[in-house]
Amino acid sequence: MAVRIIRQLATTKQNTRHYSSELKKCTLIPGDGIGPEISAAVQKIFSVAKVPIEWESVDVTPVRGPDGKFGIPQKAIDSVNRNKIGLKGPLMTPVGKGHRSLNLALRKEFSLYANVRPCRSLEGYKTLYDNVDVVTIRENTEGEYSGIEHEIVDGVVQSIKLITEDASRRVAEFAFKYTKENNRKKLTVVHKANIMRMSDGLFLRCCRDTAEKFPDVKFEEKYLDTVCLTMVQDPSQFDVLVMPNLYGDILSDMCAGLVGGLGLTPSGNIGINGALFESVHGTAPDIAGQDKANPTALLLSSVMMLKYMGLNDYANRIQTACFDTIKEAKYLTGDLGGKAKCSEFTNEICNKL
Amino acid sequence: MAVRIIRQLATTKQNTRHYSSELKKCTLIPGDGIGPEISAAVQKIFSVAKVPIEWESVDVTPVRGPDGKFGIPQKAIDSVNRNKIGLKGPLMTPVGKGHRSLNLALRKEFSLYANVRPCRSLEGYKTLYDNVDVVTIRENTEGEYSGIEHEIVDGVVQSIKLITEDASRRVAEFAFKYTKENNRKKLTVVHKANIMRMSDGLFLRCCRDTAEKFPDVKFEEKYLDTVCLTMVQDPSQFDVLVMPNLYGDILSDMCAGLVGGLGLTPSGNIGINGALFESVHGTAPDIAGQDKANPTALLLSSVMMLKYMGLNDYANRIQTACFDTIKEAKYLTGDLGGKAKCSEFTNEICNKL
Ligand SMILES: CC(C)[C@H](C(=O)O)[C@@H](O)C(=O)O
Ligand SMILES: CC(C)[C@H](C(=O)O)[C@@H](O)C(=O)O
Repeated sequence: MAVRIIRQLATTKQNTRHYSSELKKCTLIPGDGIGPEISAAVQKIFSVAKVPIEWESVDVTPVRGPDGKFGIPQKAIDSVNRNKIGLKGPLMTPVGKGHRSLNLALRKEFSLYANVRPCRSLEGYKTLYDNVDVVTIRENTEGEYSGIEHEIVDGVVQSIKLITEDASRRVAEFAFKYTKENNRKKLTVVHKANIMRMSDGLFLRCCRDTAEKFPDVKFEEKYLDTVCLTMVQDPSQFDVLVMPNLYGDILSDMCAGLVGGLGLTPSGNIGINGALFESVHGTAPDIAGQDKANPTALLLSSVMMLKYMGLNDYANRIQTACFDTIKEAKYLTGDLGGKAKCSEFTNEICNKL
Repeated sequence: MAVRIIRQLATTKQNTRHYSSELKKCTLIPGDGIGPEISAAVQKIFSVAKVPIEWESVDVTPVRGPDGKFGIPQKAIDSVNRNKIGLKGPLMTPVGKGHRSLNLALRKEFSLYANVRPCRSLEGYKTLYDNVDVVTIRENTEGEYSGIEHEIVDGVVQSIKLITEDASRRVAEFAFKYTKENNRKKLTVVHKANIMRMSDGLFLRCCRDTAEKFPDVKFEEKYLDTVCLTMVQDPSQFDVLVMPNLYGDILSDMCAGLVGGLGLTPSGNIGINGALFESVHGTAPDIAGQDKANPTALLLSSVMMLKYMGLNDYANRIQTACFDTIKEAKYLTGDLGGKAKCSEFTNEICNKL
């Protein structure tokens, strides 16, 4: 509902001059390591493109709560809850027992139930593959990530993979809608229901049920191992894929590998009540603060965010400027084999806008 | 122990003339679909190469036991238990609830705890990759394959991933020994202990402990998602990899994809008390009985079997003949882009022997 309103607002905005009072606030979590510099790059590009957004920058470094446990600062939680939309750079996982990944904590805190990762071959950046155009949609709240584990007796441990009908249906519906609204050709559900008959079986059944509500979306079922094998041989056989949590973790990284790695691929976490877009690469402490980082993954994540908000014109202009800059290959950062600084790459995108 | 005796016998045999009384019996499970024809191809090649083996062919079509349940026929079980070594073609999984995969039943029945799958780029068969030479070693008895699942309440299912210290240590030791004995450069343990801290954590700990006993084997730890990403970008970064059950299922298929698929990659299941080698491709019912199937995966599995038995000379001769036939590309089966029949491909290998 909130999203619908944002979309309407946004559509109106693009057709009229925009006043600062209309600016939509977005939470920005710059992150650690190279996070601040790539976030600054995105902010600069947005300001040159006159995107009608106002950033609200927050820090998510865990603080000790009244219960003595470390958690996300209340200010950051409030900001995301208020704005219902955020962009996030890479976060360091605090070392030490008991610290769960902050990334996971954020997904959980805001019930970000669907993780969407598009992977597309980039013209101008050559890999072994030139025909990749897939989107993985990952259930983002349960499965192997339930966090429920026990040591039953000494040396015998069980981890629980939790699959619920509610969460499975929710992500299945999201995936079918996504496939349809984006005019994609096919949705593949990825599973191992031959082994985990009940859990993956339930996930599969929810997808099958949902398929009946979307008769115009082509739907297929494939085993995870088969998908991995086929993906590296001929990624053009796939389009949109939906799957339980861990399978998405694996497949999305694999697909990112096909097109050049996590530095080039965006990610969005969609919730009932808001969405958080993020680059999923690391914090690269070795090059942090040296103006060497590639902001592409975070920038493309911000493009996903703009599309989600209905700001399609801005999204498309920025995306084109970014793709063109990579295609021309005059200002590429070190990870892409170039010598440009982060700021030079960013300036070139701004020049094109 | 049994294996050591077999090895000694085998070594002796290669240096002397062999008498039929010395022939080592091997169980052969021809399998379904194309199984019988590719098994016949292997048998023919073995006989031309004068491999000192006598086949004992058994049928594993499930039969109803005294308890009313379907299971592997006693005769087949007895044969494997007696011979302690077997070769197996592809098996159809019976359709219908309650029928677990026969492949899994065999792994369980004989405690085949380590699944070894070498994947190597084949000269002459071009894929996108030409530098793949990895071996995945998969824990084969537990993990996500425990088969323990419950529906807790309506719409809430849990599957249990079971990791034990015994099974983890066993496969870790196997992997280190394998790496060392085969003069491989490095062993990578693949895990998600950042998520499944207790279960994958235990597996990881067992590998670390074992590493101390093998100071001359280079050892590294990597997350599964990172391995998937790196593997598709630069497989030469990996050598031998060891991991829990499901991860092995996924990674081994992915690696097979890099070199041409399951029709070209062998597999061995190693137990405490014997071993079963198998091709892991499907039964290909569409071409069954038409002399079109490619016997390479089963043949290379039989080569692994010969090496396991210490019959290295026979193994190497057959492997070379097979690789040369593929390299020359005069007699390739349809799956490799050729027009040769299974029998023509087989004859060419025999000619080379
Ligand atoms: C950082 C890690 C906890 C995370 C995950 O496993 O989901 C990452 O790999 C990802 O894909 O976002
Ligand atoms: C057939 C299937 C049960 C099996 C598995 O999941 O282990 C297969 O994919 C394999 O890799 O041997």
